[in-house]
Amino acid sequence: MEGVDHLAHERDKAQFDVNDMKIVWAGSREAFEVSDRMARLVANDPAFRKDNRVHLTRKELFKNTLRKAAYAWKRIIELKLTEEEAGRLRFFVDEPAYTDLHWGMFVPFLKGQGTEEQLRKWLPLAYKMQIIGCYAQTELGHGSNVQGLETTATFDPKTDEFVIHSPTLTSSKWWPGGLGKASTHAVVFARLITNGRDYGVHGFIVQIRSLDDHSVLPGITIGDIGMKFGNGAYNTMDNGVMHFDHVRIPRDQLLMRFSQVTKEGKYVQSDVPRQLVYGTMVYVRKTIVIDASNALSRAVCIATRYSAVRRQFGSQDGVETQVINYKTQQSRLFPLLASAYAFRFVGEWLQWLYTDVTKRLATNDFSTLPEAHACTAGLKSITTAATADGIEECRKLCGGHGYLCSSGLPELFAVYVPACTYEGDNVVLLLQVARFLVKTVSQLVSWKKPVGTTAYMGRLQHLMESTCKVQKSEDWLNPSIVLEVFEARSARMSVECAKRLSKFTNQEEGFQELSPSLVEAAVAHCQLIIVSKFIEKLQGDIPGQGVKEQLQKLCSIYALYTLHKHLGDFLSTSTITPKQGSLADDQLRSLYSQVRPNAIALVDAFNYTDHYLGSILGRYDGNVYPNLYNEAWKDPMNESSVPDGYHEYIKPMLKQQLRNSRL
Amino acid sequence: MEGVDHLAHERDKAQFDVNDMKIVWAGSREAFEVSDRMARLVANDPAFRKDNRVHLTRKELFKNTLRKAAYAWKRIIELKLTEEEAGRLRFFVDEPAYTDLHWGMFVPFLKGQGTEEQLRKWLPLAYKMQIIGCYAQTELGHGSNVQGLETTATFDPKTDEFVIHSPTLTSSKWWPGGLGKASTHAVVFARLITNGRDYGVHGFIVQIRSLDDHSVLPGITIGDIGMKFGNGAYNTMDNGVMHFDHVRIPRDQLLMRFSQVTKEGKYVQSDVPRQLVYGTMVYVRKTIVIDASNALSRAVCIATRYSAVRRQFGSQDGVETQVINYKTQQSRLFPLLASAYAFRFVGEWLQWLYTDVTKRLATNDFSTLPEAHACTAGLKSITTAATADGIEECRKLCGGHGYLCSSGLPELFAVYVPACTYEGDNVVLLLQVARFLVKTVSQLVSWKKPVGTTAYMGRLQHLMESTCKVQKSEDWLNPSIVLEVFEARSARMSVECAKRLSKFTNQEEGFQELSPSLVEAAVAHCQLIIVSKFIEKLQGDIPGQGVKEQLQKLCSIYALYTLHKHLGDFLSTSTITPKQGSLADDQLRSLYSQVRPNAIALVDAFNYTDHYLGSILGRYDGNVYPNLYNEAWKDPMNESSVPDGYHEYIKPMLKQQLRNSRL
Ligand SMILES: Cc1cc2nc3c(=O)[nH]c(=O)nc-3n(C[C@H](O)[C@H](O)[C@H](O)COP(=O)(O)OP(=O)(O)OC[C@H]3O[C@@H](n4cnc5c(N)ncnc54)[C@H](O)[C@@H]3O)c2cc1C
Ligand SMILES: Cc1cc2nc3c(=O)[nH]c(=O)nc-3n(C[C@H](O)[C@H](O)[C@H](O)COP(=O)(O)OP(=O)(O)OC[C@H]3O[C@@H](n4cnc5c(N)ncnc54)[C@H](O)[C@@H]3O)c2cc1C
Repeated sequence: MEGVDHLAHERDKAQFDVNDMKIVWAGSREAFEVSDRMARLVANDPAFRKDNRVHLTRKELFKNTLRKAAYAWKRIIELKLTEEEAGRLRFFVDEPAYTDLHWGMFVPFLKGQGTEEQLRKWLPLAYKMQIIGCYAQTELGHGSNVQGLETTATFDPKTDEFVIHSPTLTSSKWWPGGLGKASTHAVVFARLITNGRDYGVHGFIVQIRSLDDHSVLPGITIGDIGMKFGNGAYNTMDNGVMHFDHVRIPRDQLLMRFSQVTKEGKYVQSDVPRQLVYGTMVYVRKTIVIDASNALSRAVCIATRYSAVRRQFGSQDGVETQVINYKTQQSRLFPLLASAYAFRFVGEWLQWLYTDVTKRLATNDFSTLPEAHACTAGLKSITTAATADGIEECRKLCGGHGYLCSSGLPELFAVYVPACTYEGDNVVLLLQVARFLVKTVSQLVSWKKPVGTTAYMGRLQHLMESTCKVQKSEDWLNPSIVLEVFEARSARMSVECAKRLSKFTNQEEGFQELSPSLVEAAVAHCQLIIVSKFIEKLQGDIPGQGVKEQLQKLCSIYALYTLHKHLGDFLSTSTITPKQGSLADDQLRSLYSQVRPNAIALVDAFNYTDHYLGSILGRYDGNVYPNLYNEAWKDPMNESSVPDGYHEYIKPMLKQQLRNSRL
Repeated sequence: MEGVDHLAHERDKAQFDVNDMKIVWAGSREAFEVSDRMARLVANDPAFRKDNRVHLTRKELFKNTLRKAAYAWKRIIELKLTEEEAGRLRFFVDEPAYTDLHWGMFVPFLKGQGTEEQLRKWLPLAYKMQIIGCYAQTELGHGSNVQGLETTATFDPKTDEFVIHSPTLTSSKWWPGGLGKASTHAVVFARLITNGRDYGVHGFIVQIRSLDDHSVLPGITIGDIGMKFGNGAYNTMDNGVMHFDHVRIPRDQLLMRFSQVTKEGKYVQSDVPRQLVYGTMVYVRKTIVIDASNALSRAVCIATRYSAVRRQFGSQDGVETQVINYKTQQSRLFPLLASAYAFRFVGEWLQWLYTDVTKRLATNDFSTLPEAHACTAGLKSITTAATADGIEECRKLCGGHGYLCSSGLPELFAVYVPACTYEGDNVVLLLQVARFLVKTVSQLVSWKKPVGTTAYMGRLQHLMESTCKVQKSEDWLNPSIVLEVFEARSARMSVECAKRLSKFTNQEEGFQELSPSLVEAAVAHCQLIIVSKFIEKLQGDIPGQGVKEQLQKLCSIYALYTLHKHLGDFLSTSTITPKQGSLADDQLRSLYSQVRPNAIALVDAFNYTDHYLGSILGRYDGNVYPNLYNEAWKDPMNESSVPDGYHEYIKPMLKQQLRNSRL
């Protein structure tokens, strides 16, 4: 960040204290400090350089990731980093690696499903990375439908072992990250069969590679599944394929917290409530929502800074207009900026929800689980979908230059999009939310009071009849009006679905038939949650000069932009009138103008280093053009001026001698 | 296509003659035959293999493209292919190359802007590829705003030459395809300066490389601008950067059809009407719209076939449900199928428009030009935007496997998206359409009758007052009802914008302020064009058993899906009632069910070879799993089971010896 700051005039305009906003974004002063320290540690260490990624072959790329992962672990040990610090360090290294699955799936899953004894055996190994674990659930033929998995684990009482087997080609494990090359162990999901009976899918700890020489163990076939979207992107990960030919593991490698098989082959359920598994799920999805805010804010930071650098048309006093001044540019960019903040705060709330669920589970209180489960599923779905689309929109907002890898945006998109698919396909998840909503509505007549994020359904009568009180555009700044409008829209859509469903004699058939509308009702419900958590956040104490004011504007932008985008919902449920919709648009335009002078500072508040951003267009100092220019020359294509292949393929053509040449 | 056809049962279900549909899709029997012949020629020639693209380094990839381009040219000569055949052959080679710019931009531009004499000199060279040309307009600092280009061409009467110069870093040419490595010549856009006066941007023919040894000529600096989105994708193209240091070219290399500079340095406009340049623009954009239907249909073909292969959940009789049977899957996929056909037919109509415009220009009739210009700009914008989004949606429709390069979808997306930016940034184009619409509305009071695609504005009175006559869901199948609804929505949105604009004292300020709404009005207008051209097509004779019926369904799907997606527009302009909107949804669901049995045949009608599709998921025979499995093993990562880097980066970690290792 040395040299001239080409965006200084933008930073001077800000009407709030950017340092205070940084703390709000990070969640707390402590979180900010840890994050800031780790970001700089990574950025200043040439071992973590990443700008050469797009030029490496797959094998070089992968080897380089192995190096970084080992080096990061070495630094974590040397610097005696806490778990939080280590997590942030890995985050800023910004390169998908087998360690993500080891720490993010293998360890939490062990913790969730292992018995005390199993944890005593496996956790220390995993914590010290004496073993490397991955999460092997998906198969070539089955992903979403976990119950349809084909791999079998048949108990053999003669040897006290399970026999893990892949009976078909489609039963090959397919996709697990870290499986292809790095992992020594896997949690393998397989149908537990004992005494000829199939007890459904269970998790098993299976050693897959030798701890001596890393060779694949007998009976197991493992490979990498090949290139994925983008260049570097997720190709640093060894997503793998695995086939078992009657592989034997000791009986005690079934994860036994919830059920066990005795020496004799008897299947026994433990008295630990199975609902506990939901805890892990809430944890994983909370992480995904926070990741969405990270990825979106990163893209928005790049597009915002570049939009202030880029000038096009409309010359005043000799210089052209910064494209960020165009209302169309603002109307595409600022809602994404607002969404990044909105997702941040809903992620923060999910953190709270996770703690709350964990506490309740400890006291066998399962009452909030279905609601927590539905709401995390829905939030995962809509935040990842909006983020994927938002990154691509940010790329387009950068015009032609956004298409260069040096903009950082193509790779960010390619590495991000699978979040829409893994941990639950987004549409499949929304269908789950829809089922929950329909059930909630149907139970309203009974004694069951809707809880948590569905509490508003308890005021159904009111919401069905209420009319929106907006008379002038400023009324749209009133949080309680906005909230009620979102509640009414969501409630009415759910009720409408329930009504139409009730006309079907076969409920399941009706659900299938109406599923597109049901998905829309689920989206409406989840958008309400995001709006309401943003509003809640603003009701609390938020220190810092001008900080709360800016967040209020962003909250309004998120809400009114969502309203505009889904105007059909609001009008068709008669929640608002066309006139009120048009007033919302007026207010939105006015908000864009108010945010404009603060835009650069609002993305500075993410506190991203240039290393982490990995984008010439998004450079902190705005010094885009000379750096774009210099970067181009580094491409291997520029090693020679006359290209490889000129003599064989260009010269004979120009000289009209193609006919005789061998191609 | 040998072996078992796993989709035969799907093909048997079709209720129309797929061979007849192939002809409709191709445009005519002749077009079909040429296309089919060329597709097979390419598919059966191993020289055009492309499945190894993702594993090549940039330099290898580029060299391989040079080889293919030369080989294709050789075949074109050997087989004495017609221009049409050659074009189709290059299309099926399916790899962006410098030849695209040579044939697609350099040659048409010469033709459009050169004098007879210039054409006599340059065209034969270009036609025989004795020179390779590119189109060098965009600069590092300027793209959309062509008038802002900085490169200068200053006339020096002493030597009768123009001096081409890049006065700043930002004036470097940046982006031109084919410039980086292949081209020997370029049409360079520069500010024509003579006698100290700046006459604005003009095109010049500049030789940039030696025809002897391909070295860059003195005073010129040329390089490749580096990696772009994706893996293979557009990285086969040598988009370039070029800087001039006072490079001299003969005076007669100014393209002089419209204006000349005399020996003495006098700037003289010719009497050729400048409007002729629009002809080229209509031509290029027509091509882009047809390309949109190609790219979208390709993605839809892959996703549709795979959706019929993929099974997940809902086991009946032991086998699970094909995911194509889920209504959510249909509601995401079938509108894209319908859009592919819709874009096809609007492209066909643009072909007609181009002929019409050309004829009129020949007789100095410029009356339809502004309208033709606006409508091609708008159609380019909305078809490319919908196609880019649609490809990514198709990828998501394939679940996890869509993320593999072997699905073909990631590369298709990466290679396609710049179409949203080049030949006019999509938002900038829509703003042009909006300006035209506002002008049309403001002239309605005068004697000027709106023509062509704006003719409906002539019935403004009626459209402002008309009410939608839909009473039951089948009414939505009536083309005249649908058409009027789209006309009314568009007219009302334009009028509303014009009304709000009129309240501003400064019209330009008003336009800027209201630009987001203006863009929406432009979109509405363009969607109307697409709907109306689809309906027009269906009014003509369409032979083939069941063919017209299927197209009618697709037309209704396109219209009703668009209506659903933009429901807010239709409701806020009171064009339809919420009840009517809901009836449209009912009809849409029913149409999905009707299309379902025909889905596979409808994508077969595109007549794509497996080579062209380049997708394991989209294979004609549906034999997905064994091929996915086998493909994975070909990845270089699988050359060894223990990965490169194990000894340095994995072993020391597992053995707890990291501390001592040098990383
Ligand atoms: C980058 C990446 C990393 C991954 N990492 C891992 C890992 O570490 N471990 C692991 O085990 N797995 C992993 N996976 C696999 C991932 O979990 C699955 O891809 C995911 O669960 C989606 O399942 P699927 O691929 O079977 O999609 P499918 O379910 O086949 O989806 C195909 C289409 O069918 C639709 N569909 C499916 N069911 C229904 C329904 N009931 N109703 C309506 N529509 C339906 C979907 O919406 C989608 O449009 C990874 C995947 C990716 C892409
Ligand atoms: C793959 C590829 C190939 C190309 N090939 C060639 C080639 O062969 N020859 C050549 O000369 N060029 C080529 N180009 C360049 C291309 O034509 C330009 O990138 C394109 O014209 C867009 O201009 P820009 O990049 O300056 O975008 P910008 O105009 O800088 O766009 C940035 C943002 O500003 C917005 N914006 C700009 N002006 C306005 C306005 N007035 N009102 C509201 N918003 C505005 C845009 O909507 C966009 O969001 C290529 C580009 C690509 C990506």
